[in-house]
Amino acid sequence: MRMRTAVGIVGAGPAGLMLSHLLHRRGIESVVVESRSRESIEATIRAGVLEQGTVDLMVETGIGERLRREGFVHHGTELRFGGRGHRINFYELTGGRVVTVYAQHEVLKDLIQARLNDGGRILFEHRATAIEDATGERPAIRLTGPDGRPETLECDFVAGCDGFHGIGRATIPEAARREYLRVYPFGWFGILAKAPPSSDELIYARHERGFALISTRSPEVQRMYFQCDPSDSVENWSDDRIWEELQARTEGQGFRLREGAIFQKGIVPMRSFVCETMRHGRLFLAGDAAHIVPPTGAKGLNLAVNDVFLLARAIGSHYATGSPELLDGYPAAALRRIWRAQHFSWWMTSMLHRFADASEFDDRRQLAELELITTSLPAATVLAQNYVGMPLG
Amino acid sequence: MRMRTAVGIVGAGPAGLMLSHLLHRRGIESVVVESRSRESIEATIRAGVLEQGTVDLMVETGIGERLRREGFVHHGTELRFGGRGHRINFYELTGGRVVTVYAQHEVLKDLIQARLNDGGRILFEHRATAIEDATGERPAIRLTGPDGRPETLECDFVAGCDGFHGIGRATIPEAARREYLRVYPFGWFGILAKAPPSSDELIYARHERGFALISTRSPEVQRMYFQCDPSDSVENWSDDRIWEELQARTEGQGFRLREGAIFQKGIVPMRSFVCETMRHGRLFLAGDAAHIVPPTGAKGLNLAVNDVFLLARAIGSHYATGSPELLDGYPAAALRRIWRAQHFSWWMTSMLHRFADASEFDDRRQLAELELITTSLPAATVLAQNYVGMPLG
Repeated sequence: MRMRTAVGIVGAGPAGLMLSHLLHRRGIESVVVESRSRESIEATIRAGVLEQGTVDLMVETGIGERLRREGFVHHGTELRFGGRGHRINFYELTGGRVVTVYAQHEVLKDLIQARLNDGGRILFEHRATAIEDATGERPAIRLTGPDGRPETLECDFVAGCDGFHGIGRATIPEAARREYLRVYPFGWFGILAKAPPSSDELIYARHERGFALISTRSPEVQRMYFQCDPSDSVENWSDDRIWEELQARTEGQGFRLREGAIFQKGIVPMRSFVCETMRHGRLFLAGDAAHIVPPTGAKGLNLAVNDVFLLARAIGSHYATGSPELLDGYPAAALRRIWRAQHFSWWMTSMLHRFADASEFDDRRQLAELELITTSLPAATVLAQNYVGMPLG
Repeated sequence: MRMRTAVGIVGAGPAGLMLSHLLHRRGIESVVVESRSRESIEATIRAGVLEQGTVDLMVETGIGERLRREGFVHHGTELRFGGRGHRINFYELTGGRVVTVYAQHEVLKDLIQARLNDGGRILFEHRATAIEDATGERPAIRLTGPDGRPETLECDFVAGCDGFHGIGRATIPEAARREYLRVYPFGWFGILAKAPPSSDELIYARHERGFALISTRSPEVQRMYFQCDPSDSVENWSDDRIWEELQARTEGQGFRLREGAIFQKGIVPMRSFVCETMRHGRLFLAGDAAHIVPPTGAKGLNLAVNDVFLLARAIGSHYATGSPELLDGYPAAALRRIWRAQHFSWWMTSMLHRFADASEFDDRRQLAELELITTSLPAATVLAQNYVGMPLG
């Protein structure tokens, strides 16, 4: 079967679905191709901290109703070290900007519903196997449908929104790609637990035993992480041992985490990655396909949204004016924010984690930096502004 | 020969001489012991950037007249990267605070002159060989005079202001010392040149070939540095090669260094060091005896001044009230600023130098940080506030 559309989008994650949504609002047709099922996507719990600009975009483009109703607005966060909590007040430090905690799969539900309501096409359970003629006039996406039959989606442009391991980036010849990678010598042990929140706001804890993050996904489901050996195994960690570790890393001033049934455990690696080659002919990369940030700065989802905000505008400009200017400028425009987020994510990571090769000097220097951030107005403002994010663009 | 004084001070550097000067103003007698000659001290060119607080203290205590006349007030500095200069305006970012370029040996000349005018005693060419009974009621400094004869200086308190390799810190049993060390994998190749200034303000340059600092000591003498292998040798660097390297690291926008006769070359190691044990009975450490910073933040001399500002107050309080409170609190009070300066110096160093083990990701992340500092008001303010320094105390 052969299909045709203006923009073929590989991947129904935040980047791909938001791009399709934004293109629709510009009157541009697209088809989203996704190997997983709708049910699977809508049930996978991932990120959950939305920047002010991400929230604004969702509200402005008509998909913010449930977000406004169910999302949790956080006016600040807590940095915890030396047995004490220190609040960073985003709202005051940034002139009224905040973050909203609203799980990524809820964003996806809203986007999928909006696309379907607007007559959009999302081909779930369709595996993209190849992107052809990316540098020609008429690129095409080769697909395998749920029935195993090959299909072809011809398009004017292809958007590779299919993540780090997708075919989007892999389609660009290796010799043509400029890539940057840093792998951190630790991972995050993450759990989901059925428990009430332990804190009104997120807690970023720096402790001699390592970093911990106390986060939330809903009033009933809590997301918590602690720094671990990336080669450790989930089997080594009983529920009791996990709670003991989390309690130890957040203790002080009588603070106690509220425990509950752990229903998911996993170890995520920590890396920073950028592929600066975000365009190859008529193929454009967006989101995790082009960059990975360590989750410490809560930037992954938000960066993806910024990418497609720029890409939708560039594609819209192409159809409206015929000018290639914004398309040509897309990588440079996106990379400005990507490198800013990369630095911020590295900074948050390096400031809060224990490094095995760190000397005692490094430990004390790290504490001196945390002292600065929690006592200096401009230093706290740097953190706050970067955390809530600049306006999109 | 036996002598007696209230405070025996080992070392006639900025810490020792300023301590003696501040004690005199509180009516407390001291004797400064120094192994080198007055001529040698007054001719050795070292640091040269005075924080606002250091300048204020000199002016307030009557030794700021020549400083005010001959010192160069710098309202900002230049960060140079990507072939472009970016100004950090200290004056505007800190509400009117600045740094003053005035060579360390000029500070020492002023201090020596003031001490001698005030009847102070400085024993030049007297080598301190031991500090005895530091934990007893009556400590003593053993000396060897210029004639080789042993002498003894009995005192109530001993101040070890004799630098990293001095006997002050060495007198404290190793087991009782809490020390932190970080050695950087590079050094600074420093030159003094007879040339006019190349810039009205200091230039901190980050270049693919490594860091460079363009500094000044007077309208006729310029101090310049470039990052080098710490095991390199001065003999490997002809004057031509040095100028070529410095020109390359600062190039862009038509900028050219003004060259001249190089009359001193040297390679300095880069390290961060803190001895938190700044007190041992009646022995107190101040300045380089207790801490070394990499010179990138221009903090060494200023930290020494802050130490003795606190120590003079503490000793003064002891004689005035008999209370041990400020003496007991001296290390903790001094260490607050020391760790702040350590973090700042590490930050400036890590942001501007090339690390041999840095990945390309790290290079780009470093540039992203420099972009932030030169475009974000709060980020620039963090740098400016730390560079000009907080009020003493």
